[in-house]
Amino acid sequence: MDSVELVAQLALRARVATRSLKVASASERRSALLAIADEIASRNTEILEANAIDMASDAGSDRLLLTEERVNAIVDGVRQVANLGDPLGVTLRESTLPNGLHLKQVTVPFGVVGMIYEARPNVTVDAAAILLMSGNAALLRGSSSAAQSNAKLVSIMREALSRTKISQDVIQLVPSDDRENVRALLNARGKVDLVIPRGSAALIRMVVDEAKVPTIETGAGVCHVYVDEFADLEKALQIVVNSKVQRPSVCNAAETLLVHRSVANEFIPHALSALAKSGVIFHVDQRTQEIARSTDIPVDLAESSNWSTEYGALEINVGVVDSLEAAIEHIGTYGTNHTEAIVTQSQEQADRFIALSDCAAVMVNASTRFTDGEQMGFGAEIGISNQKLHARGPMGLEAMVTTTWIVTGTGQIRQ
Amino acid sequence: MDSVELVAQLALRARVATRSLKVASASERRSALLAIADEIASRNTEILEANAIDMASDAGSDRLLLTEERVNAIVDGVRQVANLGDPLGVTLRESTLPNGLHLKQVTVPFGVVGMIYEARPNVTVDAAAILLMSGNAALLRGSSSAAQSNAKLVSIMREALSRTKISQDVIQLVPSDDRENVRALLNARGKVDLVIPRGSAALIRMVVDEAKVPTIETGAGVCHVYVDEFADLEKALQIVVNSKVQRPSVCNAAETLLVHRSVANEFIPHALSALAKSGVIFHVDQRTQEIARSTDIPVDLAESSNWSTEYGALEINVGVVDSLEAAIEHIGTYGTNHTEAIVTQSQEQADRFIALSDCAAVMVNASTRFTDGEQMGFGAEIGISNQKLHARGPMGLEAMVTTTWIVTGTGQIRQ
Repeated sequence: MDSVELVAQLALRARVATRSLKVASASERRSALLAIADEIASRNTEILEANAIDMASDAGSDRLLLTEERVNAIVDGVRQVANLGDPLGVTLRESTLPNGLHLKQVTVPFGVVGMIYEARPNVTVDAAAILLMSGNAALLRGSSSAAQSNAKLVSIMREALSRTKISQDVIQLVPSDDRENVRALLNARGKVDLVIPRGSAALIRMVVDEAKVPTIETGAGVCHVYVDEFADLEKALQIVVNSKVQRPSVCNAAETLLVHRSVANEFIPHALSALAKSGVIFHVDQRTQEIARSTDIPVDLAESSNWSTEYGALEINVGVVDSLEAAIEHIGTYGTNHTEAIVTQSQEQADRFIALSDCAAVMVNASTRFTDGEQMGFGAEIGISNQKLHARGPMGLEAMVTTTWIVTGTGQIRQ
Repeated sequence: MDSVELVAQLALRARVATRSLKVASASERRSALLAIADEIASRNTEILEANAIDMASDAGSDRLLLTEERVNAIVDGVRQVANLGDPLGVTLRESTLPNGLHLKQVTVPFGVVGMIYEARPNVTVDAAAILLMSGNAALLRGSSSAAQSNAKLVSIMREALSRTKISQDVIQLVPSDDRENVRALLNARGKVDLVIPRGSAALIRMVVDEAKVPTIETGAGVCHVYVDEFADLEKALQIVVNSKVQRPSVCNAAETLLVHRSVANEFIPHALSALAKSGVIFHVDQRTQEIARSTDIPVDLAESSNWSTEYGALEINVGVVDSLEAAIEHIGTYGTNHTEAIVTQSQEQADRFIALSDCAAVMVNASTRFTDGEQMGFGAEIGISNQKLHARGPMGLEAMVTTTWIVTGTGQIRQ
């Protein structure tokens, strides 16, 4: 069977299975999630054995590794999702028209949702749980490096579902042994309602190029911290270090520090020193290079491409700007509209930065690292949208629904 | 200059111009719209002259034609948009986290929005007005058949803006003399935030195939009316005729009538007769063909392709189904998830139809023709979304915004 046919069959089975979700109450969906959580918890050993096979071919990968602790965290995550409010059947707008028609806009599931993701096996369960709670069937296409772990997790979740009112076909694995399956998923118009890619910039780029189905892009973050002329420089130092160093591999880590010229001579030596202590490498503009000469910290002159690079590593660009507007201009040119932070004690400057920014999240006197569903109290996150359509920023349960209009009349026709 | 460069330049100019929108208050945006309305009203004659040139090459086209009355309707439309509530700066969610961070999700404009549309010149002004009020710059790409009308309307709107605080570059025409410009618009990632196509199924298909920028598909509607076993057949007759005949060329007109077998013998002859009087042609299944024999109304046996055709004309498919579930099955196979109507006196059946449907709007005892922004009281409509992402069904002002998270702290970093 070729990939197109395979994906069509999986999607059709998923579509039929969504009927069991459509008629399931919120408490039946919650029970199914708790059954999944229990089953995963009780089969911890099997899961670690499957993961060991994956790790044998990719020994160094921390992202791929499962431990007892990590499996427990996965189980806790599923239980958390089961405790969240029901995102379905929420009335968003309601009115009665002069002709007597009653209008109600309510939330409904998308239907069949594809996930395309890389290494981390926890995404398999996190995504399935969020999609099930929001009434959607999940077609899960993980990385081939996690094939055994993902197959085991999906088979466990399906077994748990087989003892509930919800069809086990609402959770399905798309085989990771053939890259054509990804293409087929991205082209399954009318069969798959939505595909969410999670992973590298290269994966996102491929999805944008290939997709004929609706997608929500996640990921790519070239985030900036702008230290304003009215900044509290002590706070600024902590925010810059935290934004860059606390977890450099993720999308909400900072890649560029911009400093207002009036505080540059004072702030930049401290910032370089603190970041250097954590092993950060510097790509800087000429003015920063001048300032760095007073220190013994080595810096490289940045090339144009540096300013738009998501390092995902202990590297940072540093530049001096003449004004808040110049910072905005720089961010507009090189940024990815993910998260931008301003450090300032001036409310006026903060408001201006917010008004002129064009990103998913603006941080005022806080680390860029807070753009995160769990940190923001959403309970669970299926990804961070880096597009403007439908959902922007961290996406929880409530982003996994669409709406329908229910129009009730007594025989009204249009004049 | 090639199309890619041309569109990039227009988009850049539009992007810069959005700054004047970002700092404009709602009342400044409203004043700009009223200035546009006044200018169009006072230059009625010029507009009709430009339209006459277009009509000279496409004399039969009612869609292309402007009359004094139609220009007045355009002017009224702009004034209506100016009177709607401000869609910007609306706080959707707000909270304070245990660490003291204050979170606020507010509505913000997309930025630069492209419209690709066909014949009707009123779309040029409707779209520009809605986009301006929602803080977006408009790149308008109409049909070459309306080139003179659109050029005149855009030049009038820009002149009106030149006397306001809002840059005239927030409204720009993309030349319609080169089809490559459409392609360039659809590929202008990072330069154009959103493209909305309005027009034929072929246009929508091309957009889906080509687009690398986010799009909202509008249009294609294979809408059904299902006459349930518990229907009030008098109401059913009126709803079927209205859904098909009142304006057959539009997306919310019905293309297929499905009748429950228990009322088929009684209802179908009446329905065929009433529809035939309006000149409707019939494509029917075998059971309907049997029933039609008792009448003198000619019917064709439908081929499989008929059931998925959007006629946009006085043609209808008629079929008999064994149950509400069979109707849903048929609709799922051949429909486009736009608008589906059920005629029934049973609330239980209505609820079941609603639960099992998967469309933008479900009509209970009402004509499919009510899926319309103006009819539903939205005041103005930029199109009817036929996708699940972002907006579904009629889109008014509030669909033309995205959101941003404003996170305000006092130096918080992530632990």
